[in-house]
This record gives sequence, C-alpha cells and structure tokens, in this order.
Amino acid sequence: MFQVITSADNEKLKTIRKLQQKRWREKLGLFSAEGEDLIGPNPEFVLRAGIDVEPELLDAVSTLGSGTRVIGVYRQRWADPAGDVLVYLHRVEDPGNVGTIIRSADALAGATVVLGPGCADPYSPKAVRASMGSIFTRPPARATLDALDGPKIALDVTAERTLRDLDVTERVILVLGSERGELPEGLEGVRIPVLADSLNVAMAATVALYEVANRMPADG
Amino acid sequence: MFQVITSADNEKLKTIRKLQQKRWREKLGLFSAEGEDLIGPNPEFVLRAGIDVEPELLDAVSTLGSGTRVIGVYRQRWADPAGDVLVYLHRVEDPGNVGTIIRSADALAGATVVLGPGCADPYSPKAVRASMGSIFTRPPARATLDALDGPKIALDVTAERTLRDLDVTERVILVLGSERGELPEGLEGVRIPVLADSLNVAMAATVALYEVANRMPADG
Repeated sequence: MFQVITSADNEKLKTIRKLQQKRWREKLGLFSAEGEDLIGPNPEFVLRAGIDVEPELLDAVSTLGSGTRVIGVYRQRWADPAGDVLVYLHRVEDPGNVGTIIRSADALAGATVVLGPGCADPYSPKAVRASMGSIFTRPPARATLDALDGPKIALDVTAERTLRDLDVTERVILVLGSERGELPEGLEGVRIPVLADSLNVAMAATVALYEVANRMPADG
Repeated sequence: MFQVITSADNEKLKTIRKLQQKRWREKLGLFSAEGEDLIGPNPEFVLRAGIDVEPELLDAVSTLGSGTRVIGVYRQRWADPAGDVLVYLHRVEDPGNVGTIIRSADALAGATVVLGPGCADPYSPKAVRASMGSIFTRPPARATLDALDGPKIALDVTAERTLRDLDVTERVILVLGSERGELPEGLEGVRIPVLADSLNVAMAATVALYEVANRMPADG
C-alpha cells in the first residue's frame, strides 16, 4: 500500500528542499528536476502532486514560482571529457547559460560540456531546467583546460579569424568564457562575425557548435 | 538645485512601479530599463541610487532580486518591418526569448524582429534585460505575417530541407514559433540539423540568423 505524503516533515520533501543548495547537492551527490518535461531515467524517487504527495506540499519545495506537478530526484553523473567535440567553459557563472550550452551541445553536435573551475553548478535547478532533457542524455564533465588533449579554439571577439576559417579535422575543443570575462591565455582564437555588441555565451556556443557540427567529417 | 527623492510616493518611482505592468506600459507608451549596462539614449528620466533617490527606494521598485543602481524610463519605439532580413515571431510568449532574439538579430544580421499577435511584450523588464542594448538600437516591429512582403521561410523541425539548402537572395523573412507550438501554415520550411531534441526558439533564431547573415550577398 502506498501512502500520500501529508507532512512537510517527510524525508523525501526534506531532501528536495536540501537539494536547492549546492552544498547539499555535493554532499548527497543528487539533484532534483521539476516538471513533467524533465523526468529522466532511473530516479532515486519521484513525487507526483495528488498521487504521492499533497499538491501544496510539493509546491512548497518547488523552485518554480508557479509550483509544479512532479519532482524527481536523481544521482548526479559526470562524464569523461571524451568525444570529437568538447565545449570547455571557463568561469561561466550563470547556471541558465551552463544549462543552455549543455542543451545546445547535445542537440547540435552530440558534444560533452566540460566545466572548468569557477563555473556554475550544472545540477542547480536553473541549469537543469535550461538543459531540458540533455542533462540526462549528455551529462557534463569536470576538468581543467590543461588536462584536455586536442586542438583548443577559443571563441574570442577580438580574434582575427572567424568561425568560417576554422579547420575542423578530428577533434575540437571549443573554449568559451563568460561575457566580458577573460579567456585562458595562449589559445588560438576565432570570432563569430557580429555587427553589434556581442552575443551572450550561450548564443555564441550555439552558433559555434552549429558551425563545427556542419564541418565535422561525416562518419564512415 | 536637485533634491534626492526620499519618499516612495514620488511620481517617478510610482511610474517605474506602474511600468512593471503591461497595461500601464501600453497606456503610457513607456518602459523601464534597469542596471548600468542598460542605459539607453534619450531617457524620459533616469534615477541613480544615492544621487537622485535613496537606494532603498530604488531597490523597492526594481524587478531584479538583487536591487539595482540605476533605472531609466524611456519612450517605446516601434520600427517599420523593413530591411533585408526580418525575423517574424509567431506566438513566442516567453519574454526572455523575445529579448534574446532581438539581441541576436541585431548582433548577427542587423535584422528587425517583427512580433505577430500573441507574442510577449518586448518592453517587459525581462525582455528588455535579455535584449541588452539591442532594444534601443534595433526596436521591434509589430505586424501580421500576411502584411509582410517577401520570401517567408519557417524554421520547422519537420522540414526536409535544412538551413544549408536555403537560397538567400535579396530579402528573407525568417518565421519562428514557440517550442512545441504551431507554425503558420503553407510556408516553405527549413530545419536546423539537430541530433537530439530540439533547440529552444532563441537558439534556433540565433543559428538561423548566423547562417542567413553569412549567405547574404555582400554590400556594394
């Protein structure tokens, strides 16, 4: 017999509340994903409003202003920084941008996102939401740039060469920093041709991934 | 002699508060932009924390959780739907996406964004913030799709042709809808080659604008 949770002191609800904090996410190695669009495989547990838990109690632990119908809790997974295309993020502190780039990398190039030191936690609620399902299908990696082997190309608005001059052969590591932020030194750079201002890091990553995916030698 | 505003009943503060509501933005034809990054030309007025107004009073009318150092109020401007590249949005309801697309259109293609019926207000605080300076340099237009002359190309994940097959000659009107939403019928469609899931509308627009900008015949 299952029972509907009727108390805010329930351990599962308390876990979900804790997972809003990075400290607890790291300690437990878990994260939460909210909403019917964001249900992934192999949850530790899932709470559905009106089925497993009283709706008001679920809304009370939701990070969405509008409340939520379902919250799942999952074990964090970290990939190895492997594959033909990698996206290395240098101090990208906005979780929405990190999540969006994970989504773009997955959709456009089947690429893994590698988080360097100083990046936002990709398992924060905002990053998970921005990644849509891609946090499940293409978990991120953690590494320093030095630890990665392969040609490293920095997206750099001051570079002379553009993305169209890029020579993509076997492997490429795209390096992106936050807007107005510094990039690691000594890298080859390319820029996206822009007429005005600069793109935000998520949009720059999306364009670069599109271009790289189109230039990768076809399989087989 | 100027005087620091010390009362929440001040008319300028009350105007800023009103402009958080679409109803008031339409009635007054004004909008507000918060933050030092978002100061545009020809404001109706600007309030700076500690100079024009007590910081707590400015924070109290801010839509940013962290408060703000400066808020400017501006007259809304609406462009004619003219130019070589237009981006027509069909029921894109998320203001962050609308603002991001205005920014991409400006940066990548000098393009005007045309808002069809059912789109988010581009002058909402969230849209203005996402647009960065581009809401000032490239104000949006309003029109129905029927009112626009020129080849209309829908970004459509179900299309057979891809963006790379696109024939860009003189003018192009890119048509984008919200994720999972319907597109207007009877349009020629192209898709962005994706491996998984779909991109959100802002990322799709960014990629399409990048491709179109690269394919436009050079001036002169």
